This record gives sequence, C-alpha cells and structure tokens, in this order.
Amino acid sequence: MSQNNHLPQSGEILLQRRARLLGPNVSTFYEEPLHLVRGEGVWVWGADKRRYLDCYNNVPHVGHCHPRVVDAICRQAATLNTHTRYLHEGILDYVERLTATFADPLSTAILTCTGSEANDIALRMGEAVTGKRGVIATDHTYHGNTSAVSQLSRTNPPPGGYGGHVRHVPAPDSYRPLGGEAGMAHAHAFAGEVERAIADLEKSGQGFSAIILCPYFANEGFPDLPSGWLEPMAEIVRKAGGIIIADEVQPGFGRTGTHMWGHQRIGLTPDVVTLGKPMANGHPVGGVVTSSDLMAAFRKSFRYFNTFGGNPVSCAAAMATLSVLQDEALMDNARSVGAYARDGLSKLAQRNECIGDIRGSGLFFGAEMVLDRNTKEPATNFANRVANEMRQRGVLLNRLGIHYNTLKIRPPMPFSKDNADLLLETLDDVLTAIPVVS
Amino acid sequence: MSQNNHLPQSGEILLQRRARLLGPNVSTFYEEPLHLVRGEGVWVWGADKRRYLDCYNNVPHVGHCHPRVVDAICRQAATLNTHTRYLHEGILDYVERLTATFADPLSTAILTCTGSEANDIALRMGEAVTGKRGVIATDHTYHGNTSAVSQLSRTNPPPGGYGGHVRHVPAPDSYRPLGGEAGMAHAHAFAGEVERAIADLEKSGQGFSAIILCPYFANEGFPDLPSGWLEPMAEIVRKAGGIIIADEVQPGFGRTGTHMWGHQRIGLTPDVVTLGKPMANGHPVGGVVTSSDLMAAFRKSFRYFNTFGGNPVSCAAAMATLSVLQDEALMDNARSVGAYARDGLSKLAQRNECIGDIRGSGLFFGAEMVLDRNTKEPATNFANRVANEMRQRGVLLNRLGIHYNTLKIRPPMPFSKDNADLLLETLDDVLTAIPVVS
Repeated sequence: MSQNNHLPQSGEILLQRRARLLGPNVSTFYEEPLHLVRGEGVWVWGADKRRYLDCYNNVPHVGHCHPRVVDAICRQAATLNTHTRYLHEGILDYVERLTATFADPLSTAILTCTGSEANDIALRMGEAVTGKRGVIATDHTYHGNTSAVSQLSRTNPPPGGYGGHVRHVPAPDSYRPLGGEAGMAHAHAFAGEVERAIADLEKSGQGFSAIILCPYFANEGFPDLPSGWLEPMAEIVRKAGGIIIADEVQPGFGRTGTHMWGHQRIGLTPDVVTLGKPMANGHPVGGVVTSSDLMAAFRKSFRYFNTFGGNPVSCAAAMATLSVLQDEALMDNARSVGAYARDGLSKLAQRNECIGDIRGSGLFFGAEMVLDRNTKEPATNFANRVANEMRQRGVLLNRLGIHYNTLKIRPPMPFSKDNADLLLETLDDVLTAIPVVS
Repeated sequence: MSQNNHLPQSGEILLQRRARLLGPNVSTFYEEPLHLVRGEGVWVWGADKRRYLDCYNNVPHVGHCHPRVVDAICRQAATLNTHTRYLHEGILDYVERLTATFADPLSTAILTCTGSEANDIALRMGEAVTGKRGVIATDHTYHGNTSAVSQLSRTNPPPGGYGGHVRHVPAPDSYRPLGGEAGMAHAHAFAGEVERAIADLEKSGQGFSAIILCPYFANEGFPDLPSGWLEPMAEIVRKAGGIIIADEVQPGFGRTGTHMWGHQRIGLTPDVVTLGKPMANGHPVGGVVTSSDLMAAFRKSFRYFNTFGGNPVSCAAAMATLSVLQDEALMDNARSVGAYARDGLSKLAQRNECIGDIRGSGLFFGAEMVLDRNTKEPATNFANRVANEMRQRGVLLNRLGIHYNTLKIRPPMPFSKDNADLLLETLDDVLTAIPVVS
C-alpha cells in the first residue's frame, strides 16, 4: 500500500473549512480523516479513489445506497411529503409491519427523526406512568444528544451536572465480571446495583421512573451475557414500579443474527423500545414502540407532534429497509457470516497474544486488545493504532468498550464471508506489523 | 360542491388504524380529516380525487415535490449517505451558502434533523456562555417537542411543571396592545415585562440565560410590529448578560417577502438563530446558526454529535431548496403576491364585519375574526368553522393566535396571484355563507 504521510490537499482544505463553518471539536474518525465520495453495499470510496471495506457503519443497514431503498425514497419524494396531521397510509402500513416483529403488548409506535428524539420520548413515558423522574443507566452508555437524554451519559458529563435524577450502575463486563464471577452471579450483582440505585433515588425524593439500557450493552463493549441475564434486574424494577426502556438503536433490526431485537436475544420484555440509526438505511428515522396502555398514558400527559416524524418519504424509506432485510434474509446472513468471522478471530487469537477476548453475535462483534492475557490489562492505545492502521490498509472499523480497547466490527448486513476473509487477513497483517503497546 | 356528511370509508379505516397503531390523541386537521395522496407545487390531491389549494404548509417551501429538490435527494441517496465523522463537501458547501445570508458574526452552524433539536441546542448555548439556565419565552409560543424545549410552551404545559427556570412574558398583540397603545410604547411595555422576568429569575437563584422568540411571533398571531420594535427588549437582555435566540422555523427563508430572515425584518441581531421546517422542503433538516465564539463555547461545554445531522442527502436537499428559492426569486414572489392577497382581504373586509384585523407580510398573513369590531371580541368558533368550510370547498388553511381566531395563510412560496384569487373568492363565499358566531 502506498503510504500517505500527509492529507491530500482536499482533505486539509476540508478540515480548515469544517473548523471555520462548523466550529471547533467536531469529531472525525481516524488520525487521517477519511473523505468519502461514494458508497455501495459494504464498500465506500474515498476522494483518494481508494475503495474501503466498511466494517463499521450500521446506519446503511441493508448496504450503502441499496437501490430498493433509494427507489422508495425517490418515488415517494416525487409523489407527496407531508406531516401526519393529514391521513396517509404510509405510516400505518409501516407501523403495522414493524410492530408485527415485536411480542405483545408492544403494538403501538411514535415515529421520530432520530434515536435521540425516541429516547427523549421514552423518558417521558416513564414520567407519565410513574409520576416520577429518576432514571438509571449504566456508567458507560450513550443514548443520544438532546438536553434530557445527554444527561444519561457519563462519557460526556453535562456541565450543569446530572440534575439529581440520574443514577449510574456499573456496566456489565463479562471479561472482568463484577464480583469476579461470570454468568448469573454477575446478573444478580448487577441487579443489586440497580436495587441500590432505586433506593437512593427514592431516598433523594426524586423517585424511580425508569431504567434505560441497550439490551446488547453495545457501547459497554457488548459483554457475553446469557439469555435470562437481565431477569433479576427486571424483577427488581417491576417490584419498584418502574419501567424498562430497551434502546435498540444498535442491536435492533436483526443485527445480532439470532433475533430481530436485542431484548429478544437476552430474554427481556421491555415496556418501551427505542429505535434509530439502521431503521431507514440512513434516512433520518427513529421510533418508540410500546404498549397501548403506556402510549395512552404518554399521550394523555404530554402532547406530542413531530413535523417530520412519520412523513410519507421517511415511512417509504423505513418500509423498503425492512422489506430488503426480510426479502434478502439478512438476519440469517448476519448469523452465519458473524459466526464465520468470530471463528476466524479465534484462529488469529492463537498466534496473537494481544487478543484477550472475542465477543459478539451476528454482525456486531469484536475482540478486546490486552497487554497480558493473565492481567487483562487493556491495550487501549494499541487498539487505537490498530483501527488507524486498518483504515490505512482499506478496512474501516473502530473501537469502543469500557476501556476503549475493544475492536468494534459492525458492518452493513450484506457483509459476506469473502468480506470477512479480507477483514481477517488485513487484521492479521496489522496485528503482526505493529508492536503491542499500552 | 357535493357535501360529504360522512368520511369516505378509507378515511374511517385510516382513523381506526391510527388509533390502534399510533395511540389516542394523535392530532389531525379539520373535522373531516384529509387523506392526501399526491402533491405538486401549491396543490395537493386527496384520496377523494379532489384537488386542494394548499394555503397552509410551509414545509414544502419551494412547492410540493419540487423536481430539483427531488432530483437532488435521489442523486445523493444513490451516491452516498453517511455521518459527519467522515469528511464530505456537502455540509460545508451548504453551511457556507446558508451563513452567507446572515449578517456577521452569524457564520457557523450545526445541522440537525428537526427544529426541535435545533432549539434544544440553542438553550444549551445559552447555558454554555452564561452558566445559567433561566429562559424567557412568550406565553403563547411553541418551540418544539423535546423534553427541554417543550417546557417553554404554555399551550402544552409539562405535567411536572416548568422546572422553575422558565418565565413567560405576555405575547405581543398589535390589535390589543399591552397598555392600550401600539408601536414603541407597546415595545417598551414588552421590554418591561422581560426586565421583570429577568429580575425574577435572578431572585429565584436560577439566573438568566436566554430569551427565545420567533421574531415574527408566528404562533402569537403575527402582530404588526415595526422594525426596531424589539430593540428595547434586546438592550435589557444584553445588559443582563443573556443571549437572544431567534427561532426562524416559521418566518425564515424569505417567507415574509421583505427579508430572508424574520430577525432582519424586525431589525434584531440575535446571538443564535434556529432553523427547521422549510429548510429542505420536507426532508428532515434543522439547524442552528451562531457566531464562532458562541459555537466554540458550546462545543467546549457540550460534546454534540448527531448521526443523521448534516448527512450528504440532507445537505443536498437543503442546498437544492435554497438554490430554487434564489433562482426562482421566490422571496420577491412572496412579497408581491402577499401584498396582492392582503389587498384582496381588505376588500373582503369592506363587506364582512367579521374581519377585525388584517396582518402579515409576504406569504404569511391572515385576518383576525371578531364578533364586533368595536369590542374586538374574538370569533374563535367562527374561525374554526371557516377553516373547516374552506377545506370542504378545496382550500386548505388554518387558524392560530392568542385567541385562535386568526386565519393562518402560509402557502408554499410559488403561490401565485391566481392562487390568491381562488383563495379570496372561496373565502368570500364562506364568510357570506356561514353565520358569524362566537
């Protein structure tokens, strides 16, 4: 591969223009940010004319620029685009098909434009049924960017503090489990933390409204947790009269290969489910799915109208995405290719000591980089170097997790075994080429 | 016109499906909700095969399904759609062109998916520069649907109250001015109310952060206020160290005919401007425009990333909308057609005593319905009947204002004098046909 020791001029100019037009601290990926110009399936092309294998982006869920989704958007955009105060079949047909993928009583939905808007509503659903505001989240999560929702995030603490109504519990970590023991002992330890947080909220006068979590604990590093693992937590939450919000923005829409939804995979029945990123393959669509009772309580307490939410074009894009997912059997593909890729990672682990743990399901998997398999000391900077070196070699992935040392591999769903081979071969080269440092 | 005394079956079925799939209290327009299937320019078509003149929707700003906007969406959706952690020229070209329409120092922007998200950010910009949270809004406004922003609205009071940090000032009303005197006396009375609200926030310990207002006071009934009217308010806000947020979701993008932005029309220099509905002709795009200094303060205090915000398709849609607006000289059209239509309304007022006041600018105008021109008693139910009867006769408008008795006429920007004639003739028939009741 030819090394670029400097940005192509267009990249430099774009970075200068970004600083001037968008302000400082606008994040980019990679030490050498990537200037993209085209996407198709699992591939993206840079302004440098190179093709990159996209092993990261879950927004183009059924593949970048899938022609059926593009066609649905074009046809509806040319026909009608308006808000839901007029009647239109698009939103109803979509919500009917979407809610059919959930178990009872999750049968009604609000469509929004972003996952952040969805979580912002979900928190108010908790307020509507409990009359209280206290919320519990993990200490390594992210649920979105509105004022209310960003207060849940420990990684970007709000300057004004957490407003007294947020409690954080330690993120589950199957590699370094709380109390030292994995499986159900870990589950009860987690539930115990939730119980203490509830008691603390009640004592503070805030009261307990809801726990919000990604049922796959994606940002936490997708720990390996068995079905039923969240049951002890759920019992405690129900007993306390709170609701459970499952943020499916990352594991939803079949990504884990075994189930359509992350909560189904872990055997949890949430009260509210929130949706976002992959829902319409990149068209701005999010949503909240809940029971009729909870929806009625929300709609009684809060009036809610979203001008763009549920418009005919957004619904056409979401419907096409769901249709492609089902017609092309992409959940099955995620299961088989994901298993194949994790097998390949296990083989890499045989000759690369830096791979401490391999986790994940379907097309959301990765490996935790460590300095020493006995001490499990995180190789955080090394993971960062790996991600950057992979990008230089034409494969896009990133890292996340409690110690930011877990490679995050979450490609578009049509990712094939050939694609996995390219990923694995490149990763093998990179792990061999660069020294393992902290 | 043939009278429909019942909904067409499809409409009934759609309403039943809405209740089941979307929950109760999901608002619709008109006593007989309209089932739309197609739009083009200023026209929409119902499932009843009838064509309706759209005198209401500002989202399809340059006309329903404008072919240049549709084409821009299709081309970009087929090429690439991804987030802003990669570099892309689309967002930079758009923000450059957008900010060129603002006076210094309003030169940087964040792109979001909705106007609500934009206002949610704007409030945090106030927090970032003042370190305080107290916000002032009018008592008849609406700025959006997030948890934080919906707390500003008196019409949908939050069940948990206003959180102690919101103060409401009486909405300006040029027809019934505070203290009885219009013009600058009214302006000073308004500024006095703001001054009292600031003092109250400071006394409460919340402190004063920002005032947020629509510079056209659209929901308040677009009172007739001269340029400079907000100057006394602005002086007081600046002296108190707070910021001014201008919500341009309704008057922006040339709608008022005389200026690109509502704040330019009224001679106000805001610190932050928020954008929404018309920005991309229906594609979900919103934005926040501010100075480099304020942007830097926000980005230092709050990390912000919006997955869909500023994506290449959204930017292509927004760019095409702005291009059409300028290329087709639609602001000029708004000025001349708006003046023509208001002239026509004045003629109707000569023979219809129910028209108490005619207000507005460009293609955002209307008439206040009263029972008696001397007492100015609002004819609220009558205004409602007028809107419904107009809909039955194929012309879509609605009502708003402090007493919900002001007809709201806010059509797509290519609205022509012929369109205005049809609106006026139909309105004349309706005002003659139905009795004026309270």
